[in-house]
Amino acid sequence: MHTLVLLRHGQSIWNLENRFTGWTDVDLSEQGIGEARESGELLRQQGYEFDVCHTSLLKRAIRTLWLTLDSLDRMWLPVERTWRLNERHYGALQGLNKAETARKYGDEQVFVWRRSFDTPPPPLELGDERFPGNDSRYAQVDKGLLPRCESLQMTIERTMPYWFDVMAPQIRTGKRLLVVAHGNSLRGLVKYLDDMDDQSITRLNIPTGIPLVYTLDENLRPIESRYLGDADKVAQRAEAVANQAKS
Amino acid sequence: MHTLVLLRHGQSIWNLENRFTGWTDVDLSEQGIGEARESGELLRQQGYEFDVCHTSLLKRAIRTLWLTLDSLDRMWLPVERTWRLNERHYGALQGLNKAETARKYGDEQVFVWRRSFDTPPPPLELGDERFPGNDSRYAQVDKGLLPRCESLQMTIERTMPYWFDVMAPQIRTGKRLLVVAHGNSLRGLVKYLDDMDDQSITRLNIPTGIPLVYTLDENLRPIESRYLGDADKVAQRAEAVANQAKS
Repeated sequence: MHTLVLLRHGQSIWNLENRFTGWTDVDLSEQGIGEARESGELLRQQGYEFDVCHTSLLKRAIRTLWLTLDSLDRMWLPVERTWRLNERHYGALQGLNKAETARKYGDEQVFVWRRSFDTPPPPLELGDERFPGNDSRYAQVDKGLLPRCESLQMTIERTMPYWFDVMAPQIRTGKRLLVVAHGNSLRGLVKYLDDMDDQSITRLNIPTGIPLVYTLDENLRPIESRYLGDADKVAQRAEAVANQAKS
Repeated sequence: MHTLVLLRHGQSIWNLENRFTGWTDVDLSEQGIGEARESGELLRQQGYEFDVCHTSLLKRAIRTLWLTLDSLDRMWLPVERTWRLNERHYGALQGLNKAETARKYGDEQVFVWRRSFDTPPPPLELGDERFPGNDSRYAQVDKGLLPRCESLQMTIERTMPYWFDVMAPQIRTGKRLLVVAHGNSLRGLVKYLDDMDDQSITRLNIPTGIPLVYTLDENLRPIESRYLGDADKVAQRAEAVANQAKS
Protein backbone atom coordinates (compact mmCIF):
# COMPACT_ATOMS: atom_id res chain seq x y z
CA MET A 1 0.00 0.00 0.00
CA HIS A 2 1.18 3.48 -0.90
CA THR A 3 0.06 6.95 0.13
CA LEU A 4 0.01 9.81 -2.36
CA VAL A 5 -1.04 13.35 -1.43
CA LEU A 6 -2.19 15.87 -4.03
CA LEU A 7 -2.61 19.54 -3.14
CA ARG A 8 -3.96 22.39 -5.26
CA HIS A 9 -2.26 25.72 -4.50
CA GLY A 10 -4.13 28.26 -2.41
CA GLN A 11 -5.98 31.27 -3.82
CA SER A 12 -3.82 33.52 -6.01
CA ILE A 13 -3.99 37.25 -6.57
CA TRP A 14 -5.53 36.69 -9.98
CA ASN A 15 -8.06 34.15 -8.67
CA LEU A 16 -9.09 37.07 -6.50
CA GLU A 17 -9.18 39.44 -9.49
CA ASN A 18 -10.96 36.75 -11.47
CA ARG A 19 -8.47 36.77 -14.37
CA PHE A 20 -7.32 33.92 -16.62
CA THR A 21 -3.97 33.03 -15.09
CA GLY A 22 -2.61 29.91 -16.78
CA TRP A 23 1.18 30.13 -16.88
CA THR A 24 1.31 33.75 -15.68
CA ASP A 25 3.50 33.68 -12.59
CA VAL A 26 1.23 35.42 -10.08
CA ASP A 27 1.66 34.98 -6.36
CA LEU A 28 -0.66 33.72 -3.63
CA SER A 29 -3.15 36.12 -2.05
CA GLU A 30 -3.20 36.54 1.74
CA GLN A 31 -6.04 34.02 1.81
CA GLY A 32 -3.98 31.62 -0.30
CA ILE A 33 -1.05 31.92 2.11
CA GLY A 34 -3.41 31.05 4.96
CA GLU A 35 -4.82 28.07 3.03
CA ALA A 36 -1.31 26.74 2.41
CA ARG A 37 -0.34 27.04 6.08
CA GLU A 38 -3.57 25.31 7.09
CA SER A 39 -2.99 22.40 4.77
CA GLY A 40 0.50 21.89 6.19
CA GLU A 41 -0.95 22.03 9.69
CA LEU A 42 -3.60 19.41 8.81
CA LEU A 43 -0.96 17.07 7.37
CA ARG A 44 1.22 17.57 10.43
CA GLN A 45 -1.59 16.94 12.92
CA GLN A 46 -2.50 13.72 11.14
CA GLY A 47 1.10 12.53 11.12
CA TYR A 48 1.75 12.42 7.36
CA GLU A 49 5.35 11.90 6.33
CA PHE A 50 6.87 12.34 2.85
CA ASP A 51 10.06 11.40 1.04
CA VAL A 52 9.87 13.55 -2.10
CA CYS A 53 7.85 16.59 -3.19
CA HIS A 54 6.89 17.58 -6.71
CA THR A 55 5.66 20.94 -7.93
CA SER A 56 5.38 23.15 -11.00
CA LEU A 57 7.57 26.07 -12.14
CA LEU A 58 4.98 28.60 -10.96
CA LYS A 59 5.37 30.47 -7.70
CA ARG A 60 1.81 30.05 -6.45
CA ALA A 61 2.41 26.27 -6.33
CA ILE A 62 6.03 26.56 -5.11
CA ARG A 63 5.07 28.97 -2.32
CA THR A 64 2.18 26.70 -1.31
CA LEU A 65 4.69 23.85 -1.07
CA TRP A 66 7.18 25.99 0.89
CA LEU A 67 4.51 27.04 3.40
CA THR A 68 3.31 23.45 3.71
CA LEU A 69 6.85 22.15 4.30
CA ASP A 70 7.42 24.91 6.83
CA SER A 71 4.24 23.95 8.77
CA LEU A 72 5.32 20.29 8.58
CA ASP A 73 8.87 21.15 9.76
CA ARG A 74 10.15 19.26 6.72
CA MET A 75 11.95 22.02 4.79
CA TRP A 76 14.79 19.56 4.13
CA LEU A 77 12.71 17.26 1.92
CA PRO A 78 13.85 17.06 -1.72
CA VAL A 79 11.70 19.08 -4.12
CA GLU A 80 11.48 18.45 -7.86
CA ARG A 81 10.05 21.17 -10.09
CA THR A 82 8.63 20.53 -13.57
CA TRP A 83 6.78 22.48 -16.27
CA ARG A 84 4.65 19.36 -16.79
CA LEU A 85 2.77 20.12 -13.55
CA ASN A 86 2.07 23.75 -14.59
CA GLU A 87 -1.50 24.99 -14.87
CA ARG A 88 -3.33 24.70 -18.22
CA HIS A 89 -2.00 27.35 -20.63
CA TYR A 90 -4.83 29.76 -21.42
CA GLY A 91 -3.29 31.09 -24.64
CA ALA A 92 -4.46 34.53 -25.75
CA LEU A 93 -6.92 34.70 -22.84
CA GLN A 94 -4.11 34.86 -20.26
CA GLY A 95 -4.33 38.08 -18.30
CA LEU A 96 -7.94 38.87 -19.25
CA ASN A 97 -10.62 39.29 -16.60
CA LYS A 98 -13.02 36.35 -16.71
CA ALA A 99 -16.14 38.44 -16.24
CA GLU A 100 -15.08 40.88 -19.01
CA THR A 101 -14.23 37.97 -21.30
CA ALA A 102 -17.67 36.53 -20.58
CA ARG A 103 -19.36 39.84 -21.44
CA LYS A 104 -17.31 40.12 -24.67
CA TYR A 105 -17.56 36.54 -25.97
CA GLY A 106 -20.67 35.47 -24.07
CA ASP A 107 -20.98 33.18 -21.08
CA GLU A 108 -21.44 30.22 -23.37
CA GLN A 109 -18.16 30.63 -25.29
CA VAL A 110 -16.23 31.23 -22.08
CA PHE A 111 -17.92 28.22 -20.52
CA VAL A 112 -16.80 26.12 -23.52
CA TRP A 113 -13.21 27.40 -23.24
CA ARG A 114 -13.18 26.76 -19.51
CA ARG A 115 -15.14 23.58 -19.27
CA SER A 116 -15.00 21.62 -22.52
CA PHE A 117 -12.54 18.74 -22.59
CA ASP A 118 -10.91 19.40 -25.93
CA THR A 119 -11.56 23.00 -27.09
CA PRO A 120 -8.46 25.16 -26.62
CA PRO A 121 -8.69 28.94 -26.21
CA PRO A 122 -7.22 31.18 -29.00
CA PRO A 123 -3.46 30.47 -29.40
CA LEU A 124 -0.64 32.94 -28.77
CA GLU A 125 1.65 34.20 -31.52
CA LEU A 126 5.17 32.77 -31.16
CA GLY A 127 6.52 36.31 -30.64
CA ASP A 128 4.09 37.04 -27.79
CA GLU A 129 5.89 37.51 -24.47
CA ARG A 130 3.29 35.23 -22.92
CA PHE A 131 4.55 32.32 -25.09
CA PRO A 132 6.70 30.13 -22.78
CA GLY A 133 9.36 29.78 -25.47
CA ASN A 134 10.26 33.40 -24.69
CA ASP A 135 10.77 32.77 -20.95
CA SER A 136 14.20 31.63 -19.71
CA ARG A 137 12.68 29.32 -17.12
CA TYR A 138 11.61 27.01 -19.96
CA ALA A 139 14.98 27.17 -21.75
CA GLN A 140 15.67 23.48 -21.02
CA VAL A 141 12.40 22.35 -22.66
CA ASP A 142 12.17 21.62 -26.40
CA LYS A 143 10.27 24.56 -27.91
CA GLY A 144 8.08 22.15 -29.85
CA LEU A 145 6.66 20.89 -26.56
CA LEU A 146 5.79 24.31 -25.17
CA PRO A 147 2.12 25.28 -25.62
CA ARG A 148 0.65 28.35 -27.34
CA CYS A 149 -2.65 27.42 -25.68
CA GLU A 150 -4.11 24.27 -24.16
CA SER A 151 -7.43 22.50 -23.81
CA LEU A 152 -7.90 20.38 -20.70
CA GLN A 153 -7.07 17.37 -22.88
CA MET A 154 -3.77 18.90 -24.02
CA THR A 155 -2.90 19.75 -20.40
CA ILE A 156 -3.52 16.18 -19.31
CA GLU A 157 -1.50 14.78 -22.22
CA ARG A 158 1.61 16.76 -21.27
CA THR A 159 1.18 16.15 -17.53
CA MET A 160 0.89 12.36 -17.62
CA PRO A 161 4.41 11.52 -18.88
CA TYR A 162 5.65 12.96 -15.57
CA TRP A 163 3.42 10.53 -13.70
CA PHE A 164 4.59 7.52 -15.70
CA ASP A 165 8.29 8.47 -15.95
CA VAL A 166 8.98 10.12 -12.60
CA MET A 167 6.28 9.88 -9.94
CA ALA A 168 4.96 6.33 -10.41
CA PRO A 169 8.47 4.77 -10.38
CA GLN A 170 9.28 6.65 -7.16
CA ILE A 171 6.07 5.43 -5.53
CA ARG A 172 6.90 1.85 -6.58
CA THR A 173 10.22 2.09 -4.72
CA GLY A 174 8.27 2.98 -1.57
CA LYS A 175 8.59 6.76 -1.64
CA ARG A 176 5.77 8.85 -0.18
CA LEU A 177 4.98 11.74 -2.53
CA LEU A 178 3.51 15.18 -1.90
CA VAL A 179 2.42 16.83 -5.18
CA VAL A 180 1.55 20.53 -5.11
CA ALA A 181 0.15 21.70 -8.43
CA HIS A 182 -2.78 23.32 -10.21
CA GLY A 183 -6.45 22.68 -10.87
CA ASN A 184 -5.97 21.24 -14.34
CA SER A 185 -2.67 19.36 -14.01
CA LEU A 186 -4.18 17.69 -10.93
CA ARG A 187 -7.31 16.87 -12.92
CA GLY A 188 -5.05 14.85 -15.21
CA LEU A 189 -3.76 12.77 -12.32
CA VAL A 190 -7.23 12.31 -10.79
CA LYS A 191 -8.76 11.37 -14.16
CA TYR A 192 -6.15 8.67 -14.62
CA LEU A 193 -6.20 7.37 -11.04
CA ASP A 194 -10.00 7.33 -10.74
CA ASP A 195 -10.47 6.19 -14.35
CA MET A 196 -12.90 9.03 -15.09
CA ASP A 197 -14.32 9.73 -18.55
CA ASP A 198 -13.67 12.94 -20.48
CA GLN A 199 -16.95 14.59 -19.54
CA SER A 200 -16.83 13.75 -15.84
CA ILE A 201 -13.40 15.28 -15.38
CA THR A 202 -14.57 18.62 -16.82
CA ARG A 203 -17.13 18.79 -13.99
CA LEU A 204 -14.69 17.99 -11.20
CA ASN A 205 -13.71 21.06 -9.15
CA ILE A 206 -10.70 20.36 -6.96
CA PRO A 207 -10.77 22.69 -3.94
CA THR A 208 -7.75 24.92 -3.22
CA GLY A 209 -5.48 24.26 -0.28
CA ILE A 210 -7.03 20.97 0.84
CA PRO A 211 -4.89 17.80 0.78
CA LEU A 212 -6.37 14.99 -1.33
CA VAL A 213 -5.03 11.69 0.02
CA TYR A 214 -4.92 8.57 -2.15
CA THR A 215 -4.21 5.11 -0.82
CA LEU A 216 -2.86 3.01 -3.71
CA ASP A 217 -2.39 -0.74 -4.00
CA GLU A 218 0.79 -2.40 -5.27
CA ASN A 219 -0.28 -1.76 -8.88
CA LEU A 220 -0.82 1.92 -7.98
CA ARG A 221 -4.60 1.59 -8.33
CA PRO A 222 -6.63 3.53 -5.73
CA ILE A 223 -8.08 1.65 -2.76
CA GLU A 224 -9.42 4.89 -1.29
CA SER A 225 -9.22 8.65 -1.73
CA ARG A 226 -10.38 11.43 0.56
CA TYR A 227 -9.95 15.11 1.30
CA LEU A 228 -8.45 15.94 4.67
CA GLY A 229 -10.35 18.17 7.03
CA ASP A 230 -13.81 19.59 7.35
CA ALA A 231 -16.34 18.46 4.68
CA ASP A 232 -18.14 21.82 4.58
CA LYS A 233 -14.90 23.62 3.87
CA VAL A 234 -14.09 21.19 1.05
CA ALA A 235 -17.50 21.82 -0.57
CA GLN A 236 -17.20 25.58 -0.11
CA ARG A 237 -13.72 25.76 -1.73
CA ALA A 238 -14.84 23.59 -4.68
CA GLU A 239 -17.91 25.81 -5.15
CA ALA A 240 -15.76 28.97 -5.09
CA VAL A 241 -13.64 27.55 -7.92
CA ALA A 242 -16.71 26.50 -9.93
CA ASN A 243 -18.16 30.02 -9.71
CA GLN A 244 -15.16 31.79 -11.16
CA ALA A 245 -16.31 31.66 -14.78
CA LYS A 246 -19.63 33.37 -14.21
CA SER A 247 -19.69 37.02 -15.21
CA MET B 1 34.84 31.96 -17.45
CA HIS B 2 32.38 30.82 -14.81
CA THR B 3 30.61 32.61 -11.97
CA LEU B 4 30.01 30.89 -8.64
CA VAL B 5 28.21 32.57 -5.75
CA LEU B 6 28.61 31.40 -2.15
CA LEU B 7 26.34 32.68 0.59
CA ARG B 8 26.46 32.03 4.33
CA HIS B 9 23.01 31.89 5.94
CA GLY B 10 21.83 34.91 7.92
CA GLN B 11 21.89 35.14 11.71
CA SER B 12 20.05 32.30 13.44
CA ILE B 13 18.17 32.29 16.74
CA TRP B 14 21.02 30.42 18.38
CA ASN B 15 23.65 32.77 16.94
CA LEU B 16 21.66 35.36 18.82
CA GLU B 17 21.61 33.22 21.99
CA ASN B 18 25.29 32.47 21.46
CA ARG B 19 24.87 28.67 21.57
CA PHE B 20 26.80 25.95 19.72
CA THR B 21 24.43 25.11 16.89
CA GLY B 22 26.10 22.69 14.49
CA TRP B 23 23.47 20.35 13.05
CA THR B 24 20.71 21.54 15.39
CA ASP B 25 17.92 22.70 13.09
CA VAL B 26 17.31 26.20 14.44
CA ASP B 27 15.64 28.88 12.37
CA LEU B 28 16.77 32.35 11.26
CA SER B 29 16.32 35.28 13.61
CA GLU B 30 14.43 38.38 12.40
CA GLN B 31 17.82 39.92 11.59
CA GLY B 32 18.79 36.79 9.66
CA ILE B 33 15.59 37.01 7.61
CA GLY B 34 16.44 40.61 6.79
CA GLU B 35 20.01 39.66 5.82
CA ALA B 36 18.72 36.94 3.46
CA ARG B 37 16.28 39.33 1.77
CA GLU B 38 19.03 41.91 1.40
CA SER B 39 21.42 39.46 -0.22
CA GLY B 40 18.75 38.48 -2.77
CA GLU B 41 18.10 42.15 -3.44
CA LEU B 42 21.83 42.79 -4.01
CA LEU B 43 22.09 39.88 -6.44
CA ARG B 44 18.98 41.05 -8.28
CA GLN B 45 20.16 44.66 -8.57
CA GLN B 46 23.47 43.51 -10.00
CA GLY B 47 21.76 41.23 -12.51
CA TYR B 48 23.04 37.85 -11.33
CA GLU B 49 21.37 34.82 -12.90
CA PHE B 50 21.61 31.19 -11.78
CA ASP B 51 20.84 27.77 -13.18
CA VAL B 52 21.05 25.55 -10.09
CA CYS B 53 21.08 26.15 -6.33
CA HIS B 54 22.68 24.00 -3.65
CA THR B 55 22.02 24.05 0.05
CA SER B 56 22.23 21.94 3.21
CA LEU B 57 19.53 19.99 5.04
CA LEU B 58 19.25 22.68 7.72
CA LYS B 59 16.43 25.21 7.69
CA ARG B 60 18.53 28.31 8.41
CA ALA B 61 20.31 27.71 5.09
CA ILE B 62 17.20 26.56 3.22
CA ARG B 63 15.19 29.57 4.41
CA THR B 64 18.04 31.90 3.46
CA LEU B 65 17.93 30.35 -0.02
CA TRP B 66 14.13 30.62 -0.21
CA LEU B 67 14.21 34.30 0.75
CA THR B 68 17.02 34.95 -1.71
CA LEU B 69 15.14 33.20 -4.55
CA ASP B 70 12.01 35.12 -3.65
CA SER B 71 13.86 38.47 -3.82
CA LEU B 72 15.40 37.38 -7.13
CA ASP B 73 11.98 36.29 -8.49
CA ARG B 74 13.58 32.91 -9.29
CA MET B 75 11.57 30.56 -7.10
CA TRP B 76 11.41 28.13 -10.02
CA LEU B 77 15.16 27.40 -10.03
CA PRO B 78 16.11 23.80 -9.19
CA VAL B 79 17.40 23.34 -5.64
CA GLU B 80 19.57 20.43 -4.50
CA ARG B 81 19.89 19.72 -0.78
CA THR B 82 22.74 17.73 0.75
CA TRP B 83 24.01 16.84 4.24
CA ARG B 84 27.54 17.44 2.91
CA LEU B 85 26.92 21.21 3.01
CA ASN B 86 25.70 21.09 6.63
CA GLU B 87 27.48 23.09 9.32
CA ARG B 88 30.33 21.50 11.26
CA HIS B 89 28.92 19.01 13.80
CA TYR B 90 29.72 20.28 17.29
CA GLY B 91 29.30 16.90 18.99
CA ALA B 92 28.52 17.01 22.70
CA LEU B 93 28.80 20.81 22.74
CA GLN B 94 25.68 21.20 20.55
CA GLY B 95 23.04 23.16 22.42
CA LEU B 96 25.40 24.64 25.03
CA ASN B 97 25.78 28.38 25.45
CA LYS B 98 29.19 29.49 24.20
CA ALA B 99 29.85 31.89 27.06
CA GLU B 100 28.88 29.26 29.67
CA THR B 101 31.04 26.69 27.94
CA ALA B 102 33.91 29.16 27.99
CA ARG B 103 33.42 29.78 31.72
CA LYS B 104 33.31 26.02 32.39
CA TYR B 105 36.18 24.81 30.19
CA GLY B 106 38.07 28.09 29.90
CA ASP B 107 38.36 30.47 26.98
CA GLU B 108 41.42 28.65 25.78
CA GLN B 109 39.83 25.19 25.46
CA VAL B 110 36.76 26.66 23.73
CA PHE B 111 39.01 28.66 21.45
CA VAL B 112 40.83 25.43 20.51
CA TRP B 113 37.55 23.61 19.84
CA ARG B 114 36.26 26.52 17.77
CA ARG B 115 39.37 27.61 15.97
CA SER B 116 41.88 24.78 15.70
CA PHE B 117 41.99 23.01 12.37
CA ASP B 118 41.97 19.42 13.57
CA THR B 119 40.76 19.20 17.19
CA PRO B 120 37.19 17.90 17.37
CA PRO B 121 34.90 18.67 20.32
CA PRO B 122 33.81 15.77 22.61
CA PRO B 123 31.88 13.15 20.55
CA LEU B 124 28.23 12.18 21.01
CA GLU B 125 27.15 8.72 22.16
CA LEU B 126 25.48 6.79 19.31
CA GLY B 127 22.24 6.70 21.31
CA ASP B 128 22.18 10.48 21.80
CA GLU B 129 19.23 12.11 20.01
CA ARG B 130 21.67 14.68 18.68
CA PHE B 131 23.51 11.96 16.72
CA PRO B 132 22.36 12.36 13.07
CA GLY B 133 21.96 8.58 12.72
CA ASN B 134 18.84 8.97 14.90
CA ASP B 135 17.24 11.62 12.64
CA SER B 136 15.07 10.47 9.70
CA ARG B 137 16.35 13.25 7.46
CA TYR B 138 19.69 11.41 7.25
CA ALA B 139 18.12 8.00 6.65
CA GLN B 140 19.53 7.87 3.10
CA VAL B 141 23.11 8.41 4.31
CA ASP B 142 25.33 5.50 5.37
CA LYS B 143 25.53 5.65 9.18
CA GLY B 144 29.28 5.20 9.01
CA LEU B 145 29.55 8.57 7.27
CA LEU B 146 27.49 10.48 9.82
CA PRO B 147 29.58 12.40 12.39
CA ARG B 148 29.49 12.14 16.21
CA CYS B 149 31.55 15.36 16.23
CA GLU B 150 33.72 17.18 13.72
CA SER B 151 36.86 19.27 13.62
CA LEU B 152 37.08 21.87 10.84
CA GLN B 153 39.27 19.39 8.98
CA MET B 154 36.64 16.63 9.24
CA THR B 155 33.96 19.09 8.03
CA ILE B 156 36.04 20.01 5.01
CA GLU B 157 36.79 16.38 4.21
CA ARG B 158 33.10 15.46 4.02
CA THR B 159 32.12 18.64 2.17
CA MET B 160 34.61 18.43 -0.68
CA PRO B 161 33.28 15.24 -2.37
CA TYR B 162 30.15 17.27 -3.14
CA TRP B 163 32.30 19.88 -4.87
CA PHE B 164 34.16 17.34 -6.96
CA ASP B 165 31.23 15.01 -7.73
CA VAL B 166 28.30 17.42 -8.11
CA MET B 167 29.10 21.13 -8.21
CA ALA B 168 32.30 21.24 -10.26
CA PRO B 169 30.87 19.01 -13.05
CA GLN B 170 27.79 21.28 -13.25
CA ILE B 171 29.97 24.38 -13.47
CA ARG B 172 32.00 22.75 -16.26
CA THR B 173 28.80 22.27 -18.30
CA GLY B 174 28.19 26.02 -18.02
CA LYS B 175 25.76 26.09 -15.12
CA ARG B 176 25.78 29.12 -12.82
CA LEU B 177 25.61 27.98 -9.20
CA LEU B 178 24.27 29.64 -6.08
CA VAL B 179 25.45 27.81 -2.94
CA VAL B 180 23.81 28.71 0.38
CA ALA B 181 25.50 26.99 3.28
CA HIS B 182 27.28 27.45 6.61
CA GLY B 183 30.43 29.06 7.98
CA ASN B 184 32.48 25.87 8.07
CA SER B 185 31.24 24.02 4.97
CA LEU B 186 31.90 27.24 3.03
CA ARG B 187 35.37 27.45 4.57
CA GLY B 188 36.05 24.11 2.92
CA LEU B 189 35.16 25.46 -0.51
CA VAL B 190 37.09 28.70 0.03
CA LYS B 191 40.16 26.85 1.34
CA TYR B 192 40.22 24.70 -1.78
CA LEU B 193 39.46 27.47 -4.27
CA ASP B 194 41.93 29.97 -2.76
CA ASP B 195 44.49 27.27 -1.96
CA MET B 196 44.75 28.37 1.68
CA ASP B 197 46.83 26.52 4.29
CA ASP B 198 45.30 24.86 7.35
CA GLN B 199 46.11 27.72 9.72
CA SER B 200 44.90 30.53 7.47
CA ILE B 201 41.48 28.98 7.00
CA THR B 202 40.91 28.82 10.78
CA ARG B 203 41.30 32.60 10.89
CA LEU B 204 38.89 33.32 8.02
CA ASN B 205 35.50 34.64 9.17
CA ILE B 206 32.95 34.54 6.37
CA PRO B 207 30.27 37.18 7.03
CA THR B 208 26.60 36.14 7.19
CA GLY B 209 24.18 37.08 4.42
CA ILE B 210 26.69 38.62 2.03
CA PRO B 211 27.17 37.01 -1.40
CA LEU B 212 30.78 35.98 -2.12
CA VAL B 213 31.25 35.96 -5.90
CA TYR B 214 33.99 33.90 -7.55
CA THR B 215 34.99 34.24 -11.17
CA LEU B 216 36.60 30.96 -12.25
CA ASP B 217 38.66 30.10 -15.32
CA GLU B 218 38.07 27.07 -17.51
CA ASN B 219 39.98 24.88 -15.04
CA LEU B 220 37.77 26.23 -12.26
CA ARG B 221 40.67 28.17 -10.73
CA PRO B 222 39.72 31.62 -9.33
CA ILE B 223 40.51 34.70 -11.42
CA GLU B 224 38.83 36.96 -8.87
CA SER B 225 36.65 36.82 -5.78
CA ARG B 226 34.77 39.58 -4.00
CA TYR B 227 31.96 40.22 -1.55
CA LEU B 228 28.97 42.09 -2.95
CA GLY B 229 27.89 45.29 -1.31
CA ASP B 230 29.23 47.73 1.21
CA ALA B 231 32.77 47.02 2.53
CA ASP B 232 32.02 48.32 6.04
CA LYS B 233 29.07 45.97 6.36
CA VAL B 234 31.22 43.03 5.22
CA ALA B 235 33.85 43.83 7.88
CA GLN B 236 31.19 44.33 10.56
CA ARG B 237 29.48 40.99 9.87
CA ALA B 238 32.80 39.11 9.84
CA GLU B 239 33.73 40.75 13.15
CA ALA B 240 30.37 39.79 14.71
CA VAL B 241 31.04 36.13 13.82
CA ALA B 242 34.61 36.27 15.17
CA ASN B 243 33.38 37.63 18.52
CA GLN B 244 30.93 34.84 19.21
CA ALA B 245 33.38 32.61 21.13
CA LYS B 246 34.33 35.18 23.71
CA SER B 247 32.61 34.77 27.06
